[in-house]
Amino acid sequence: MDKIMICIIGSGNWATTIARNVGRNVMNSQTLDEKVPMYVYEEIVEGRKLTEIINTTHINSKYMPNFELPPNIVAVDDIVTTARDADIIIFAIPPTFVSSCCKTLLGKVKPTAHAVSLIKGFERGDDGQFVLISQIIMRQLKIPCSVLVGCNLAHELAHDHFAEGTVGCRDQKYYRVLHDIFRSPTFRVVVTEDADCVEICSTLRNIIAFAAGCSDGMELNENTKGGIIRRGFLEMLQFVDVFYPGCRMGTFFESCGISDLVTSCYANRNRKLAEAFVKTGKPLSELEHILIPGHEPLGPVTAELVHHMLKKKGLEDKFPLFTTVYRICTGDYPLQRLVETLIKAREDIFHPLHTFQL
Amino acid sequence: MDKIMICIIGSGNWATTIARNVGRNVMNSQTLDEKVPMYVYEEIVEGRKLTEIINTTHINSKYMPNFELPPNIVAVDDIVTTARDADIIIFAIPPTFVSSCCKTLLGKVKPTAHAVSLIKGFERGDDGQFVLISQIIMRQLKIPCSVLVGCNLAHELAHDHFAEGTVGCRDQKYYRVLHDIFRSPTFRVVVTEDADCVEICSTLRNIIAFAAGCSDGMELNENTKGGIIRRGFLEMLQFVDVFYPGCRMGTFFESCGISDLVTSCYANRNRKLAEAFVKTGKPLSELEHILIPGHEPLGPVTAELVHHMLKKKGLEDKFPLFTTVYRICTGDYPLQRLVETLIKAREDIFHPLHTFQL
Repeated sequence: MDKIMICIIGSGNWATTIARNVGRNVMNSQTLDEKVPMYVYEEIVEGRKLTEIINTTHINSKYMPNFELPPNIVAVDDIVTTARDADIIIFAIPPTFVSSCCKTLLGKVKPTAHAVSLIKGFERGDDGQFVLISQIIMRQLKIPCSVLVGCNLAHELAHDHFAEGTVGCRDQKYYRVLHDIFRSPTFRVVVTEDADCVEICSTLRNIIAFAAGCSDGMELNENTKGGIIRRGFLEMLQFVDVFYPGCRMGTFFESCGISDLVTSCYANRNRKLAEAFVKTGKPLSELEHILIPGHEPLGPVTAELVHHMLKKKGLEDKFPLFTTVYRICTGDYPLQRLVETLIKAREDIFHPLHTFQL
Repeated sequence: MDKIMICIIGSGNWATTIARNVGRNVMNSQTLDEKVPMYVYEEIVEGRKLTEIINTTHINSKYMPNFELPPNIVAVDDIVTTARDADIIIFAIPPTFVSSCCKTLLGKVKPTAHAVSLIKGFERGDDGQFVLISQIIMRQLKIPCSVLVGCNLAHELAHDHFAEGTVGCRDQKYYRVLHDIFRSPTFRVVVTEDADCVEICSTLRNIIAFAAGCSDGMELNENTKGGIIRRGFLEMLQFVDVFYPGCRMGTFFESCGISDLVTSCYANRNRKLAEAFVKTGKPLSELEHILIPGHEPLGPVTAELVHHMLKKKGLEDKFPLFTTVYRICTGDYPLQRLVETLIKAREDIFHPLHTFQL
């Protein structure tokens, strides 16, 4: 039987970080091909091609200069050459490049190939609903796409700190292999079939982290943040119940649920953006560029799309925290409204939780 | 119809803080008696009786000197006089005084009276299981006992900061009234019937906060704390499932569950105790007195009793985080074991969560 071949699309710090895990994990494998091509957007760095630097020094001097890659990670300057023989195609590129990459790859990859998205973000569909990045890849590339999500993973993996990631896998055949290629002695990976839920959790938590940042900006107490996390978690569950029915409660108890939510509310960029928004009084449009160069501010953007989806179904009142974050971002609500929302939020909790007995 | 009479047993800072809410909430009520007797252990403060000071200045100069009580809170130096006409008896005393107070009150209170415990802690029963404080009151005083729990409530209520509390109520008749007497414009109170679950959550979280403090003491990353909270929450659910079956999932989503857990892991005394334990290398017995004067260190004590209960059922392996905290406290495990436990914890999650679909 042929060995499973893996490739990586992307060469930024997240792509390079995960390449280290993948490269190490495929070595000496009976079932996985040792060679892992990595698509690198060609650049000239100090007079040399980046692909050449990576393939001779095993260091991505542009994006991860203090960090050695295993020698079986092979930089390739052409995306089709990188992916054409791969059974598993790992996407770790900025969200804005997904469509163009898929267009280039369409019809050029194995029809049996399986994609994995490591990309944060989403697009707004024509119907005003979320289009998850994995859905974009599936539609455009016409192959199944799983996801790997986690909080601040690039940094933690690069430093061999403890981290947890959740894989939402769309093909049972790949459960074991996706676990095995991503994990490391300090990186705990859990694979679940609940792929939509995994990806939507990782998006919704940015709204809640933004609320937590507002609380920090106002220098409110720990209980306010605890209340934001509680109410936010409940609204995440409700949102998934309404828009992605059939997801499993257990997925919210994987790292993509509760751990990433809590961690985001203490340490994430959206939290920091919100804190700066409150402390400086500057409009978000001005701060986005200071704080998150090259990335959309996921908290406000997610809150806007979620609000749009809720409004269409007349459900704004059932999601008072999500609605309040949206209206704080637009300037319609004063900041004080955040605590008022927590206090006034309906006291009877989400129905399925209420009736579910242990 | 006679108005419902409420009394408060205790005059420490928690008793005094809640007395302010209760005193304000019963004023001008159609159904609640305006006068609220408060049992004050008589002391001489600067040459005057404490009861006399409270009843003339409306300030508890010993325990809450910067804090005015409503005039309808009446200090009484005799516990039987305080409680004998009360329909609702609120206990806010140190746990070590519960038995002696109940002995004094037995047969002297209305047989229809309803107790509410605001007391943190538990006792070890003859069978090696938890005896919750509310159970002690029920057994000894032979009246039903509800509970009010929350994180750091005395401090937050005193300063009118946002806080959430959960009442576990053992008699439907008192749902509304317990909400109405405790709440305030910044204190959100939710009443649930799941009283055991409310009280056990507020105890178990101390084990997890201790683990979080160990992580802080070792200066580990945010993801480690996120992992501790995730795993701890799961073990709380499992523990309740095994030892208190029939509790409802929804209770874990009230403040007594997720919010108090998260808040404890960032700001609680057990967390600080653990942090000092790791940073100083001193034995717990030495630090307890430094950090929590007059109180047992709930994290280590709870971990010990929980371990005993798990061991009896052969379930230690199913609760690796609880077991690890116990063994770190006893010195059997090195601190490094904490992260190893998070990494190795079984990947398949708690069965009821796994099968429960939204």
